[in-house]
Amino acid sequence: MEQITELKYALDTFYFLVSGALVMWMAAGFSMLEAGLVRAKNTAEILTKNVGLYAVACIMYMLCGYGIMYGDGSGILPAIGMLGADDNEAAAVLAAVAAGDEDAPYYSNMSDFFFQVVFVATAMSIVSGAVAERMKLWTFFAFAIVFTGFVYPVQGYWKWGGGWLDEAGFLDFAGSGLVHLAGGAAALAGVLLLGARKGKYGPKGEVRPIPGANLPLATLGTFILWFGWFGFNGGSELKVSDIGEANAVARVFVNTNMAAAGGVVSALLLARLWFGKADLTMALNGALAGLVAITAEPLTPTPLLATGVGAIGGLIVVAAVRGLDKVRIDDPVGAISVHGVVGIWGLLAVCLSNPESSLTAQLIGIAAIFGWVFGCSIALWYLLKKTVGIRVSEQTEYEGVDIEECGLEAYPEFTRSD
Amino acid sequence: MEQITELKYALDTFYFLVSGALVMWMAAGFSMLEAGLVRAKNTAEILTKNVGLYAVACIMYMLCGYGIMYGDGSGILPAIGMLGADDNEAAAVLAAVAAGDEDAPYYSNMSDFFFQVVFVATAMSIVSGAVAERMKLWTFFAFAIVFTGFVYPVQGYWKWGGGWLDEAGFLDFAGSGLVHLAGGAAALAGVLLLGARKGKYGPKGEVRPIPGANLPLATLGTFILWFGWFGFNGGSELKVSDIGEANAVARVFVNTNMAAAGGVVSALLLARLWFGKADLTMALNGALAGLVAITAEPLTPTPLLATGVGAIGGLIVVAAVRGLDKVRIDDPVGAISVHGVVGIWGLLAVCLSNPESSLTAQLIGIAAIFGWVFGCSIALWYLLKKTVGIRVSEQTEYEGVDIEECGLEAYPEFTRSD
Amino acid sequence: MEQITELKYALDTFYFLVSGALVMWMAAGFSMLEAGLVRAKNTAEILTKNVGLYAVACIMYMLCGYGIMYGDGSGILPAIGMLGADDNEAAAVLAAVAAGDEDAPYYSNMSDFFFQVVFVATAMSIVSGAVAERMKLWTFFAFAIVFTGFVYPVQGYWKWGGGWLDEAGFLDFAGSGLVHLAGGAAALAGVLLLGARKGKYGPKGEVRPIPGANLPLATLGTFILWFGWFGFNGGSELKVSDIGEANAVARVFVNTNMAAAGGVVSALLLARLWFGKADLTMALNGALAGLVAITAEPLTPTPLLATGVGAIGGLIVVAAVRGLDKVRIDDPVGAISVHGVVGIWGLLAVCLSNPESSLTAQLIGIAAIFGWVFGCSIALWYLLKKTVGIRVSEQTEYEGVDIEECGLEAYPEFTRSD
Repeated sequence: MEQITELKYALDTFYFLVSGALVMWMAAGFSMLEAGLVRAKNTAEILTKNVGLYAVACIMYMLCGYGIMYGDGSGILPAIGMLGADDNEAAAVLAAVAAGDEDAPYYSNMSDFFFQVVFVATAMSIVSGAVAERMKLWTFFAFAIVFTGFVYPVQGYWKWGGGWLDEAGFLDFAGSGLVHLAGGAAALAGVLLLGARKGKYGPKGEVRPIPGANLPLATLGTFILWFGWFGFNGGSELKVSDIGEANAVARVFVNTNMAAAGGVVSALLLARLWFGKADLTMALNGALAGLVAITAEPLTPTPLLATGVGAIGGLIVVAAVRGLDKVRIDDPVGAISVHGVVGIWGLLAVCLSNPESSLTAQLIGIAAIFGWVFGCSIALWYLLKKTVGIRVSEQTEYEGVDIEECGLEAYPEFTRSD
Repeated sequence: MEQITELKYALDTFYFLVSGALVMWMAAGFSMLEAGLVRAKNTAEILTKNVGLYAVACIMYMLCGYGIMYGDGSGILPAIGMLGADDNEAAAVLAAVAAGDEDAPYYSNMSDFFFQVVFVATAMSIVSGAVAERMKLWTFFAFAIVFTGFVYPVQGYWKWGGGWLDEAGFLDFAGSGLVHLAGGAAALAGVLLLGARKGKYGPKGEVRPIPGANLPLATLGTFILWFGWFGFNGGSELKVSDIGEANAVARVFVNTNMAAAGGVVSALLLARLWFGKADLTMALNGALAGLVAITAEPLTPTPLLATGVGAIGGLIVVAAVRGLDKVRIDDPVGAISVHGVVGIWGLLAVCLSNPESSLTAQLIGIAAIFGWVFGCSIALWYLLKKTVGIRVSEQTEYEGVDIEECGLEAYPEFTRSD
Repeated sequence: MEQITELKYALDTFYFLVSGALVMWMAAGFSMLEAGLVRAKNTAEILTKNVGLYAVACIMYMLCGYGIMYGDGSGILPAIGMLGADDNEAAAVLAAVAAGDEDAPYYSNMSDFFFQVVFVATAMSIVSGAVAERMKLWTFFAFAIVFTGFVYPVQGYWKWGGGWLDEAGFLDFAGSGLVHLAGGAAALAGVLLLGARKGKYGPKGEVRPIPGANLPLATLGTFILWFGWFGFNGGSELKVSDIGEANAVARVFVNTNMAAAGGVVSALLLARLWFGKADLTMALNGALAGLVAITAEPLTPTPLLATGVGAIGGLIVVAAVRGLDKVRIDDPVGAISVHGVVGIWGLLAVCLSNPESSLTAQLIGIAAIFGWVFGCSIALWYLLKKTVGIRVSEQTEYEGVDIEECGLEAYPEFTRSD
């Protein structure tokens, strides 16, 4: 009996660690996606941002974010203490299970921290793409410190830490809201204060496409994210060690995959209809939109419904990318559309299949997450703008931020000399 | 006792899901491999094909393919029904196991669907490379719909669904035939009707190399496939939860890896001998050939024999690439050689180590798979040729299919203006 | 009871296989990292080296290396025999466990071989980067045969095979010494005999930067390595199937991740301080340095200490890259600094948290590993230099080794015609 408890604990921990490693791998996905969608002269800087923000997110979440989100409310420092302490003692776990304690720990605390920390980094990665090609590097890192250490964890606590949104009946299985909408809201705030890239919008309101320099990289990034999402959603079931849980995790895998597939097809078809071409970047955005859309509820839909939820996400993202350009919100990689707009759709789509959901609670959650993150972010971006500045000089923007910020070029031998 | 049954079910399901995720990741491998081996002007389109075909494969297999291949024979629609229904009930599983039922389910149906669906996508990915740089995008997708929804599942049913090839004693552990030869046969049919790329073969029969634009991408794609193949072959043992099965899965991992290593070395040496150079593309094809060769039987060989099976695959692929060029079958990425020709070798090599194999049964299987897939494919490609057309215009081919089909360029800043 | 033994065996084997697959994936990481950091004209050759060395390492380790490192000392051939033999018999395992035998096997021998073989390849991958852009391809492969078949396994036996270093109390959890320092020592020996690239150092001792051609690839490679390191360190706990072991594996994951994060931040800050720029390549080297540093002891530190150990690694690597350039040791990818110098730091850092460590034993281990590997390597490189030659001709170096060695170009359409 005790050995079975130990084995279940081991399997659930291992499942958590594998899932977390897959989510960590999504950092590579965001890096490649964003590096592929910006111009060559801004590529090294966006890579530096992505590597750096992942590191900052891990450190800040260890220092205080995890404590805020899942701690006992006593503040910041306990997080360090907890992470320095021992994990669950085997004897204590076994005693708790033997006593029939339903709250007995069934996986390693450290594996929980690992899984959660890579989520924070995901949220932060969303921001870097939207502000690409014109934001100062070190300003971005300053924002990342506060976002990952404070802004994200507070709203995370509201739901996943057992706070008021959780009590209000708000449902968000793996984070269409807490991760994707949150990232999108922070990105939107940044873009509003930052303004569009030079030349993106003409004097008469026309939209000038600025093509990404390396679409194979962007495609690779999308596939990495798709692959990593099996950890992101699959791991969010939090348990795999009995028949019911194993079935649930399997269903989450299937639905996650089908939603992405639905998003690809619908986005390709709509792009074909609107633009007359099978636009690759829309297919990629469609896949990501499908993934974001299903993330709030990947368990209760049938695979057919999951495909539909993803497909609607794919339609929304194509429309949103167009719509944001119309109102001159310049998002080089479409992050606000994919994660913000479709994240809202995902939260609403919970009501299509989960009988425990309430549209009111979902709307409250959307408003709360967006309000909190957008409010904090715009205040913080404003503060940074008024102090250290958030935008590079016109000269730097023209020459590319790579040389100025990083002192090197991403592709020194490849680009055409103009 | 019941808890042990539940744990085994959970472990086998989790193993299936991890394996399936690795196979899904192979879609990225095919994308990068093919994107690296075509010219820059055709790169965005091949990426669109790969993202799109994966999505199409998932949807079609859900809608009807899975039902044909593993259903009760009652036709197409039950598949949807089944996927909408609940998974195995825990109580039913436990009762069946307690009653000693040898057919008691031991993993989630959903995990089975997930694992199988990524195989279909793999088969379809093989085709896209061979027809690259000259086939119409939407025609390709039309083919993909029928191939993944009908052609592949029918022959899959013959063996893995328990059909006549299975009863005839045909052995194909993870699909050297059902996946790789099938993909190769469909690709060959397409190429025959499509014709060679302009300029590939000179008027006097000389072969003009058309180098791939991005060999690091092709190398990355090969490594992704190699990595994903541990899921492809390793997961095909279908069970891991006791000592014998765990040993079997481990042996499959080792043999898969050794066969790929053998293929690299032999292909490099043969290329050195024939061309005087350590041709990177041959090393990559050698790795893939080793993997394809061992896929029909990765369990019974010793690691030394597995290395040999892979090494012979590496020799075959170098010879086949040359041979196909001699008969003017133009396959830009070598897919027909790697998956078709070496797939046949893999099916024959089963007889080297598996005492239950019969050469006759293997030959019947090869003939049946090739006959069915090639026959269906050539009919379908012909129908498409006579209706919507399969080949882009000469003008489009000259300018590259990216602009015409996708409305964008893969590397807008990099390529030399001629 | 027997079923529990079987399940534990299955889980530990599966954990080993997943870990091993992740380490195999690191081969792709080294390939992309190195391909991104060399010039375009030398890219195909470094890719060929990386694919080829992985294959050579697998074959040589199967043929003799594994037998030397973990065998019974009876020489080379038993390795083949063992790998051809059956794995642990279920009945024997169950009997041993029932009899309370503490040495009863608890995972598949084949899974052990798989995990170990990918470590050898990792060590060998370290060398290829340092000697890039000027070493003859086939000479490199000749070195790889001896290194992976003999030099690495002998020192591996000293510690992990239970030899004298193990008995001396030397601690090296996952190979800061046995893998990384060993690779760095072999690389240093090669570079000393090979000399610097033409033009790297000016006549007055000035250092001329030779920028890498493709920094997104280098970033991708770093992320692949970071991801794969969860298998490298996480798998080195060797067991996961009870509460204590699961906690240990989880802590290893967390510490591995935190050390990399620490390395990124410290390297970025130091680069900013010294060069005035957020140098992307230093951020990447910082991540790898953090990973190498924690590899000798990822279990006993708190996550905060692990971050610190990684951060110091990040500082060391920036200083070492500069320092090696000062003494004109030309290492295009910084492999000697990252793996050699920081590997030593990692071995010393064991003493910060592991109460069973002894500084003396660590110093003895460092001296022994470096002495053995450097000694063997310099002798072997010297022998190769005097016979087949180790350096390409000046003409080949000027034109790039790709055409001469591989007969093709990595990016035939991209590079500027000079």
